[in-house]
Amino acid sequence: MAKARVLLVGCGGIGTVAALNLEAGGLASVSCVLRSSYDIVTAKGFSIESCDHGTLEGWKPTEVLQAVPVANDTNPFDYIICCTKNVPDVPPLLPDIISPAVTPKRTIIVLIQNGLHIERPFLTKFPSNIVLSGVSRADAHETQPGTIQQKQTDVLHIGAFPHSTRSVTDCQTAAGDFVRRYSAGGRTKCTYVADVGLDRWRKLVYNATLNPICTLTGLDTGALQSHEHSMQTLVRPAMKEVILVASAVGYQLPEDVIETTLAGNPIEQRIAPSMLMDLRKGNLIEHENLVGAVVREAEALGIPTPVLTMLYNLCCSVQLRLKIARGL
Amino acid sequence: MAKARVLLVGCGGIGTVAALNLEAGGLASVSCVLRSSYDIVTAKGFSIESCDHGTLEGWKPTEVLQAVPVANDTNPFDYIICCTKNVPDVPPLLPDIISPAVTPKRTIIVLIQNGLHIERPFLTKFPSNIVLSGVSRADAHETQPGTIQQKQTDVLHIGAFPHSTRSVTDCQTAAGDFVRRYSAGGRTKCTYVADVGLDRWRKLVYNATLNPICTLTGLDTGALQSHEHSMQTLVRPAMKEVILVASAVGYQLPEDVIETTLAGNPIEQRIAPSMLMDLRKGNLIEHENLVGAVVREAEALGIPTPVLTMLYNLCCSVQLRLKIARGL
Repeated sequence: MAKARVLLVGCGGIGTVAALNLEAGGLASVSCVLRSSYDIVTAKGFSIESCDHGTLEGWKPTEVLQAVPVANDTNPFDYIICCTKNVPDVPPLLPDIISPAVTPKRTIIVLIQNGLHIERPFLTKFPSNIVLSGVSRADAHETQPGTIQQKQTDVLHIGAFPHSTRSVTDCQTAAGDFVRRYSAGGRTKCTYVADVGLDRWRKLVYNATLNPICTLTGLDTGALQSHEHSMQTLVRPAMKEVILVASAVGYQLPEDVIETTLAGNPIEQRIAPSMLMDLRKGNLIEHENLVGAVVREAEALGIPTPVLTMLYNLCCSVQLRLKIARGL
Repeated sequence: MAKARVLLVGCGGIGTVAALNLEAGGLASVSCVLRSSYDIVTAKGFSIESCDHGTLEGWKPTEVLQAVPVANDTNPFDYIICCTKNVPDVPPLLPDIISPAVTPKRTIIVLIQNGLHIERPFLTKFPSNIVLSGVSRADAHETQPGTIQQKQTDVLHIGAFPHSTRSVTDCQTAAGDFVRRYSAGGRTKCTYVADVGLDRWRKLVYNATLNPICTLTGLDTGALQSHEHSMQTLVRPAMKEVILVASAVGYQLPEDVIETTLAGNPIEQRIAPSMLMDLRKGNLIEHENLVGAVVREAEALGIPTPVLTMLYNLCCSVQLRLKIARGL
């Protein structure tokens, strides 16, 4: 298997861990596009504390770039991995950002991002390119520019989004190849999932509920779970709505999905979901893909989702506040 | 009209302005109970910047106390005015706090506080005492211990809560007397309202809606009103629910109540409602009386209030966070 040429956009916690895994396996050379950390990483490399890779000082991927490069016909990118936050309500949009580096038919786009329908703008803009879904459960964060902390083993689910012109075999092969390259280092749990939709809906049981509730109330998932009133009036009803909508779309989530989702976020770990972390940092929030897309799907199908709809509407107002604070 | 003896509990912005008005009129001598500002006010008096009274340095009421005194049979309190925050979900409860100073039958209790059904625990604990309702629209705040800023003219509505054993005439006379004493200084708009319920429900159109929405989203009322999505999905639906519940209880609010409520909070003034101010200061919030009581009333009458109910449930979770932060 020849080394693949990879462009990685969004070198925060998840993105840097992905670059590290791919380089460690020896089956990919990774060019990372950095913004806020470009100067420090160029000078000193990344400083990484990882449960999978140990402590690394001065680590650098094959190439460090300050902007998305223009694709080179003789040496195109085999993969572009997107690990940025996904905020479709604020331009520039990610498909426009990566566009110069995409070689039609050739480049495989990998979205290691949360939310529903995130593939749609990519499939529209790059109709001949395969798009892969990455659902990550690693707890990795950039604590300051160039400094990465990874506290949970990288568990990554990879599958291919359904494609209107590329064959199922092509798409599955692309996904399988990526899993092989990502797993080659031997330190991660990267697995192929055949049903990307089911995988993403299962994660929405967490993302569409605990993310907005924690963001609106300031509580971490542990405190929330220790409060029976919050669980009965907010968390469980919201999770049940996600399961209902998923079922109407055609995805039967397992009966115990609520309990396994809660068990994955133990009370004593006091996990602050990514949306609450974004709020605390003053970053824009990903409510459109995490909650809005579910609410719009429900509306289209005529399924009432009173709890999710209120969470979404309140998140829209929170986003307004964040935009005002950022002068947008 | 003889000077009345008044005990005032809760000398924040509204409370201090009330004490000042009463002393200025010459028909009351006010004993103020202070906690966090006791030392500084004892030493230097209040520092007040007031649109009604001008700049006052070193102002003191007749008496400054550190705790609620025990009622003196020969010199009882004619009035006890409560201007504290009203947080019934955290003891000690206000009726218990003022209890030592209440002389049965004699002392009139005046609640200058927001929310619904706030009189109930007082009427239960002091069944022979008249309880008056005070609805304040003054924008007065304690910016630091002993320092008061009042930016809007003190507009106070006074009326008597219905009483099971005291005659309507007694109650109305008590309310009228209080209005006379409060207005004697000539600088305030203190008016008698016959229908206390209608008055309080009208204020709930603001209190049960803009207060929790601003608290959950961090937006001020101006930013909220400039955002059509927030207005259409949150503010107006919540206000309509308040009007529906009020109507079912027997209070027909005027048709233009939503518009007059919004007009009272102009976009350019960017007013942060009291509950958001409390959140920012890390104080507990008054969601039980401002939203919870409305939701419980609606439930008892079988009226669906999906927006208010969600706001209330989310506020309960916010209160949990505040309690955790305060070590409660």
